Amino acid sequence: MPPGSEDRRPLLEWISAEYHGMNGGHYETLNSSPSAVEFSRICHISRPVLVKGYSVPTDQRWSDSYLSTAMSDRPVSVAVTPNGYADAVTAGPHGKKYFAEPHIQQMTMSSLLARLNGIHEDQEKRDEAYYLQSQNGNLFSSAFFDEHSGEVDLSEFMPLREDVPSEISWCSEALGRHPDAVNLWIGNNRSVTSIHSDSYENIYHVVRGRKVFTLLPPTEGWCLEERLYPHATYVRSDPDAPLALSPSPDVAPVRWSSIQHPDRRGALPSQAHPISITVSAGETLYLPAGWWHHVKQSSEITIALNWWYDIEPRGMAWVWLNLLRGGDDVPPGNVEKDDDQTM
Amino acid sequence: MPPGSEDRRPLLEWISAEYHGMNGGHYETLNSSPSAVEFSRICHISRPVLVKGYSVPTDQRWSDSYLSTAMSDRPVSVAVTPNGYADAVTAGPHGKKYFAEPHIQQMTMSSLLARLNGIHEDQEKRDEAYYLQSQNGNLFSSAFFDEHSGEVDLSEFMPLREDVPSEISWCSEALGRHPDAVNLWIGNNRSVTSIHSDSYENIYHVVRGRKVFTLLPPTEGWCLEERLYPHATYVRSDPDAPLALSPSPDVAPVRWSSIQHPDRRGALPSQAHPISITVSAGETLYLPAGWWHHVKQSSEITIALNWWYDIEPRGMAWVWLNLLRGGDDVPPGNVEKDDDQTM
Repeated sequence: MPPGSEDRRPLLEWISAEYHGMNGGHYETLNSSPSAVEFSRICHISRPVLVKGYSVPTDQRWSDSYLSTAMSDRPVSVAVTPNGYADAVTAGPHGKKYFAEPHIQQMTMSSLLARLNGIHEDQEKRDEAYYLQSQNGNLFSSAFFDEHSGEVDLSEFMPLREDVPSEISWCSEALGRHPDAVNLWIGNNRSVTSIHSDSYENIYHVVRGRKVFTLLPPTEGWCLEERLYPHATYVRSDPDAPLALSPSPDVAPVRWSSIQHPDRRGALPSQAHPISITVSAGETLYLPAGWWHHVKQSSEITIALNWWYDIEPRGMAWVWLNLLRGGDDVPPGNVEKDDDQTM
Repeated sequence: MPPGSEDRRPLLEWISAEYHGMNGGHYETLNSSPSAVEFSRICHISRPVLVKGYSVPTDQRWSDSYLSTAMSDRPVSVAVTPNGYADAVTAGPHGKKYFAEPHIQQMTMSSLLARLNGIHEDQEKRDEAYYLQSQNGNLFSSAFFDEHSGEVDLSEFMPLREDVPSEISWCSEALGRHPDAVNLWIGNNRSVTSIHSDSYENIYHVVRGRKVFTLLPPTEGWCLEERLYPHATYVRSDPDAPLALSPSPDVAPVRWSSIQHPDRRGALPSQAHPISITVSAGETLYLPAGWWHHVKQSSEITIALNWWYDIEPRGMAWVWLNLLRGGDDVPPGNVEKDDDQTM
């Protein structure tokens, strides 16, 4: 926990109890895409909504053979870990806990799909977890949307772009902006996304398979036991060696939740009210900025797309999220009291 | 200041500094009515916007003679005070300060307009301030919008309704609801509205004259030195007697700002950033829920309409406004510290 936040605990508990009292644990399901004005209202409320009936050309087209043929021998960047936990807290040498980044390995789409289908290539009998999760705008990055950015519009997935809308009309119109990044995700149940939050409005569409989101509102972040963990990366000493966690002494420690399985009963304190939402193929989740999310996937190959839109910088949202995250510069609220005591 | 809020002061100062750092003291001006989706975005940002170009039939029609003829001899309820401060902190007997409610007097529209024009009727030479400000949905109340409310749809201003839209299309569509109340306001520079905030989204349209709003964001409410004041009401011992302030011992004390003139230089601490917006005839102000406002009027007869829409109850807005207002049940943030000290 960052300095000072222990003192803020009663305030954070009060905020989260008030918020839950007003909102409960409900989420809305829509049977068709919202209009722009409806989605603008939804963003203002900033609670998750499951949208059924927003379809993308990918939903019908993206078989294994289609993807392999379209991508041919282009290399794609895949996160590899021994245990499926990339960007997560993991025990390293001597049991010490690290925030571990995955090894990034280049492979063809057909090789990735074969591995996810359990068909290992001869030279790799190791039981490693593969997850295409580069999440850097791997389909469309800000360079695509901002021609004045000076950056080059690159994507490993150029041949797949024609199947993916670069933006979602009802979302862009509601928010009055283009997306900041559009990403492709391909994995299976070996890979789990550890609980975290992003300062983006997120539209998450499942193309194949099924994802189970465990969500907490921004107000309940204090239940997640965030700590500072030293940084490490999975590396191979040679291409055939198994992955080993390599500490990165020059990288600043990473603040991350200590709760590995918030989806399990009893993992969170009673003041937390996790919401579980299963997003099946053809369905779309609005995941509001600042909401904590842990994501599991079905055992079959699971493919998803997400559109990240910048959060509205005007107004209060940013200040509130900062307060709830408890940055080090937020005063605990008892400075005057301390001053009095020193007199 | 309510119990506990002294301890919260450093936190409130931090929030207001962050908010001002992100938003500055800017307000937007639109030269035409926003679309529904634009207004939804504006409500999400929750900062004041001056709209030029939204016109109401009243703007051309409501001369003194039109209003007097239309209203004929119907009685209307007018707030009367000796000093123009209704619903404000005022010195009473022996200099003690009270939250003073006005005397409510029935008169015809033509009589009200004559008095506001400085043409006193014979029997009233007293220099009293008159302000039609009943603000109870005097044009359209919730009974008009909700046919199932069981309440009778009453208005003192039935003949004027045909000139006033019961709702504003871009606002109702953006918020997904009807107004809760629509009010008519008629006064002159004798009457001032003391600084306060409402938990309503407010659309304020000036028909004649000019209003000057001094606004503070919800984050700067702590600068307003709210205190609990005993309640009192202006009364007359007989119809010809001058007004006297009569304490109401059975009414709970009222929490109200101690700052009578926040529009004057030096009246507020340096951490407050008041925004002054002049709304002229034919212009419309979006005054977001929770924003503090002090309102002065031009010396000519000033007529305005306002539409109050309920604040969105879902999401965080209500919790944040409650936190910033510092209700008595908000913990100061240092309970654990206190507990430690008692051990």
